[in-house]
Amino acid sequence: MRKILIIGSGKSTSYLLKYLLDKSLSENLHVTVGDLDTNHAKKIIGTLKNAKTIYLDIFDKTLLADAIKSADIVISMLPARFHIEVAKDCIIYEKHLITASYVSPEMQALHHDVKAKGLVFMNEIGLDPGIDHMSAMQVLDRIRDIGGNIILFESFTGGLVSSESDNNLWNYKFTWNPRNVVLAGQGGAAKFLQENTYKYIPYNRLFRRTEFLEIDGFGRFEIYANRDSLKYQSTYGLDKVKTFYRGTIRRIGFSRAWNIFVNLGMTDDSYTIDDSENMSYRDFINAFLPYSPTDSVELKLRHQLKIDQDDIVWDKLIELDIFNDKKMVGITKGTPAQILQKILMDSWTLGDNDKDMIVMYHKFGYELNGMKHQIDANMVVLGENQTYTAMAKTVGLPVAIAALAILNKKITTPGVQIPVSKEVYEPILKELKDFDVVFNEKEVPYHGYNPLNI
Amino acid sequence: MRKILIIGSGKSTSYLLKYLLDKSLSENLHVTVGDLDTNHAKKIIGTLKNAKTIYLDIFDKTLLADAIKSADIVISMLPARFHIEVAKDCIIYEKHLITASYVSPEMQALHHDVKAKGLVFMNEIGLDPGIDHMSAMQVLDRIRDIGGNIILFESFTGGLVSSESDNNLWNYKFTWNPRNVVLAGQGGAAKFLQENTYKYIPYNRLFRRTEFLEIDGFGRFEIYANRDSLKYQSTYGLDKVKTFYRGTIRRIGFSRAWNIFVNLGMTDDSYTIDDSENMSYRDFINAFLPYSPTDSVELKLRHQLKIDQDDIVWDKLIELDIFNDKKMVGITKGTPAQILQKILMDSWTLGDNDKDMIVMYHKFGYELNGMKHQIDANMVVLGENQTYTAMAKTVGLPVAIAALAILNKKITTPGVQIPVSKEVYEPILKELKDFDVVFNEKEVPYHGYNPLNI
Repeated sequence: MRKILIIGSGKSTSYLLKYLLDKSLSENLHVTVGDLDTNHAKKIIGTLKNAKTIYLDIFDKTLLADAIKSADIVISMLPARFHIEVAKDCIIYEKHLITASYVSPEMQALHHDVKAKGLVFMNEIGLDPGIDHMSAMQVLDRIRDIGGNIILFESFTGGLVSSESDNNLWNYKFTWNPRNVVLAGQGGAAKFLQENTYKYIPYNRLFRRTEFLEIDGFGRFEIYANRDSLKYQSTYGLDKVKTFYRGTIRRIGFSRAWNIFVNLGMTDDSYTIDDSENMSYRDFINAFLPYSPTDSVELKLRHQLKIDQDDIVWDKLIELDIFNDKKMVGITKGTPAQILQKILMDSWTLGDNDKDMIVMYHKFGYELNGMKHQIDANMVVLGENQTYTAMAKTVGLPVAIAALAILNKKITTPGVQIPVSKEVYEPILKELKDFDVVFNEKEVPYHGYNPLNI
Repeated sequence: MRKILIIGSGKSTSYLLKYLLDKSLSENLHVTVGDLDTNHAKKIIGTLKNAKTIYLDIFDKTLLADAIKSADIVISMLPARFHIEVAKDCIIYEKHLITASYVSPEMQALHHDVKAKGLVFMNEIGLDPGIDHMSAMQVLDRIRDIGGNIILFESFTGGLVSSESDNNLWNYKFTWNPRNVVLAGQGGAAKFLQENTYKYIPYNRLFRRTEFLEIDGFGRFEIYANRDSLKYQSTYGLDKVKTFYRGTIRRIGFSRAWNIFVNLGMTDDSYTIDDSENMSYRDFINAFLPYSPTDSVELKLRHQLKIDQDDIVWDKLIELDIFNDKKMVGITKGTPAQILQKILMDSWTLGDNDKDMIVMYHKFGYELNGMKHQIDANMVVLGENQTYTAMAKTVGLPVAIAALAILNKKITTPGVQIPVSKEVYEPILKELKDFDVVFNEKEVPYHGYNPLNI
């Protein structure tokens, strides 16, 4: 019996758990889920015998050590900042570790110890980061294997609502942490590389510098640049690429409307609003507009941002009920971002029957034998319901598959790592296809940014 | 003989020094100027016997202590962060201290020690902060003395170029630290109070939310909000005021053009531009615009910011020569703000014959016997030349007058303080009039922001 410990059992663990439980007999697995609250896990485990839940407080050193000691491999689905506590015990008791989070400097610092003990600490193996790394590296390696020279790499991901549940003017609902959506793009200029030129976009322009993207069968989307586009340029072996650009996918028109909040200062999380607990939604909006004894909040906003009478962005604002003078903010000493989040959650929270959708799109431009080529690859995953969401599927399945592959010694290279080697991405992407997590690839004319030089 | 030590002898000390030297015989003063470089001071002192310069490195503890020991009063004209070193020695050797800088938390923490020793540590006694405090408090106290209830206080200051030297399209030159001009308004939303409503303006809107201001004889100006408008609300005893708003004065049209740089992200000081040393001005501008193999940097900028063909802001950009592909940035690893500053200094550095101008404007709204009233007070000071600038005059004279008043025991209340008490502002404002630093007051109809309720 191989023992798997999953620490943390939030919403994103449904598919992870289901995959391992489904294989528990054939693969001889026993799964333990440890958390402060194990109700979600209990529902999924049901009456299965090869699994159990335990109460686990990771700050109780004895509890944590005991749980890790009795496992063969540990999966941490905790918030990213807590992984390091788990990782230290995994080194002491010599257990493999898997997380879907970015490698923190503290985690990276463990690399030599992890390697020396022959352990695999696999990180960034969810959706984004995760499937993005694996699917990109698979195509990049293939192009390089045939002698191609990569000149362009673009990669975009979006967590959206599925078409059938898409019933608001923003074509958007919160399918993931709402706070991250409100704060997206803050903290410095977005930077990327276009035709060998570094480009910088400040926050206040980010949502106006979007580009369109067509996905066969799913229509048109738009992209805004990620702040950290160049983070993986070296990791992907693309130091000499001319264009390296990563972004976030939204339905057309979202960004232009969102920019209203950015421009008025409502996404700011750096200060608190005086007397926010006694404010109506209307008062909140008015705090970002000039005082007038006569003019309406509506007209002041239209005038400040020059919104025409027949502009659909206006209807998007109305739909959110932001001018309501009865609905109260009800947050004491709230930041603008916290208050805006509350207002948005009234409208953008997923309903019981809503389904989510994950969209990922890569573009690979390359030169081969003096000719320019381009491969576009896209993945669309739809959620089944509120438990088995597309987000839980695309985050949880790669984690689960990696765990089993490590147990089965298909993945053996030790160290703190992310899934960019063939040893890792080949078996995982292959198996993901069985779950309809699949990339559609097509050759297209090389578009680039320099059509005259093609 | 009363001995005055002035530490730091930058450009802003010309009037300060001249005032004290002119009084050195009648008031029996001896002035010592200590600095790393005393050339500027030597020119002003000339062959006068009651003054000398000394080499002074404030990080040489012995030198500093010796200099302070042999003085009766110390004036620190150092950059603000260095005052605290001087202040500590002033407590040890029991000397009064004067600075024109904001009271830092470290300075404030000395209050009880300073008070216990009967010393006066007078801060914020330059122009802004300084003359703004004194002139505002004088009128506020007068209104309160006759039983008036203050309902509105607005205060604006600007360091500008005088009309006769005003020969560029921006109607602006650097008369003070250029870096502060480039970074103005950054670091958080501007916050102020209008008719009992808190208003917040994010940085990207700050230069589009300006208001106009007319000064008799000098024409029209515009104002953008200071970030810290409410900082002195309590100090001025205005906790119950309905409107409290402070701002910076520019000539009409400056802010709308400046907003182009803000919007494109060129005032950002939080990251460095790759390869900036090899960039032309044109390359720098292009880094904030989308890539195109064909479209010009000019048209891309016009399009991004929707600048019409006949908009004067365009001519302002052209005047700065920002599209020049021969002029090199020449700064290694420069931030956008550093590079923009360099470009601006080509055009906005004061010429040898240029004169500067200081403008200050207060509005006081109050109720008395059921009627609403308003007093407007403005001050305009013109520079004489590049040594005797309006900035040096309005910063240096209040410092000098305060120093003599303390020596002459006209100002005696001990402690770390700013000039908001009658004991301080009355004699200083009175004497400033002899130097044509004078406020023109007039009663105007109460404007407020609520004309229907007047």
